[in-house]
Amino acid sequence: MEKVSRKTIERLIIYRKILNQLKYSEISNIYSPKLGDLAGSTAAQVRRDLMTIGYNGTPSKGYDVGDLENSIGEYLDNPQGQSVAIIGVGNLGSSLLDFCYWRYPNLSKIIAFDIDSSKVGTEINNCMVYHIDDMKKILPNENIEVAVIAVPEKEAQRTCDLLINHGIKGILNYTPVRLLVPDNIFVEELDMMIALERVSYFARVKKI
Amino acid sequence: MEKVSRKTIERLIIYRKILNQLKYSEISNIYSPKLGDLAGSTAAQVRRDLMTIGYNGTPSKGYDVGDLENSIGEYLDNPQGQSVAIIGVGNLGSSLLDFCYWRYPNLSKIIAFDIDSSKVGTEINNCMVYHIDDMKKILPNENIEVAVIAVPEKEAQRTCDLLINHGIKGILNYTPVRLLVPDNIFVEELDMMIALERVSYFARVKKI
Repeated sequence: MEKVSRKTIERLIIYRKILNQLKYSEISNIYSPKLGDLAGSTAAQVRRDLMTIGYNGTPSKGYDVGDLENSIGEYLDNPQGQSVAIIGVGNLGSSLLDFCYWRYPNLSKIIAFDIDSSKVGTEINNCMVYHIDDMKKILPNENIEVAVIAVPEKEAQRTCDLLINHGIKGILNYTPVRLLVPDNIFVEELDMMIALERVSYFARVKKI
Repeated sequence: MEKVSRKTIERLIIYRKILNQLKYSEISNIYSPKLGDLAGSTAAQVRRDLMTIGYNGTPSKGYDVGDLENSIGEYLDNPQGQSVAIIGVGNLGSSLLDFCYWRYPNLSKIIAFDIDSSKVGTEINNCMVYHIDDMKKILPNENIEVAVIAVPEKEAQRTCDLLINHGIKGILNYTPVRLLVPDNIFVEELDMMIALERVSYFARVKKI
């Protein structure tokens, strides 16, 4: 696969999201300055990013919203559809299930895992919950390579190790633990408290 | 306030978190290469960042974990303590309340708001829930300038506008809506689906 910078990929994901929202507002065309503005970027950056994936607008009409959304999707998305495992369905995991079903553009399947016997075997937000011990069978069978960790902190690293043993390649980590993983595993940390600390600090210094 | 780069502040927040975890593991000293390693950075970067806040280790013993944690705290934290409002206590907001109470280093108060009459007037995860209509009185009275938005998507911008009217300066946005705010307001977006798209993409290309 050709090398596209991480930053470009991150911006493409945001462009697609904006285009999706525009589509629902029945806006069919957009010019690069406006798209740049909505994405917190510039017109020149938008044009560079889209040229990277071989997409060009027309000077007279700008970009076609639906067509550009599809083209970015073809570039970013797994052609087989994306399956995701969510480990831990407490409050946070449940809210993720809720979001996923109507938000994630290329989702083909979500499977949830927990150890709580009152949850295992039930459906939460339309998603079947399996016991964590079943991961070793289900993850490879379903060809799931992406997982979200939303377990209690003290279980985080052990859960992570298990997931990697069972073939997971990408992890979204909602626990405050910094996970130790091999180089070939991609981890994204979403630490709520670190985010809140950033907001608190920058909100305060903006005033000074 | 002196100008310290955003990146430095973000790293200081991470160093503090690591130091806090080390303290609980009863580790009392750490050298810059190790701290850099745990933070996904380098020894030289750690030393530069800490010099920015006037902190120096000793070549023989490295940094004192507790003392450095406190010094970073003095630099980052609001000396009056940090009060936070959480707007929307569905699954996501509830899980945030749960995290906040035992995680946020400088938290002095959390107040939750919702419109659901079955929640208003009750305590969720030790936090009193008020009606959103009471924000205009409570936020200024309690001097709250930081808020988390965890409401349904279609309420996001209206909630944001209300918060700013009532004196909020920093917002952590958990909805997928990109909020429009004046320049003097700091917003951090935590879009779960964008994070999951990033993980899906980078996990896939890592294999190629």
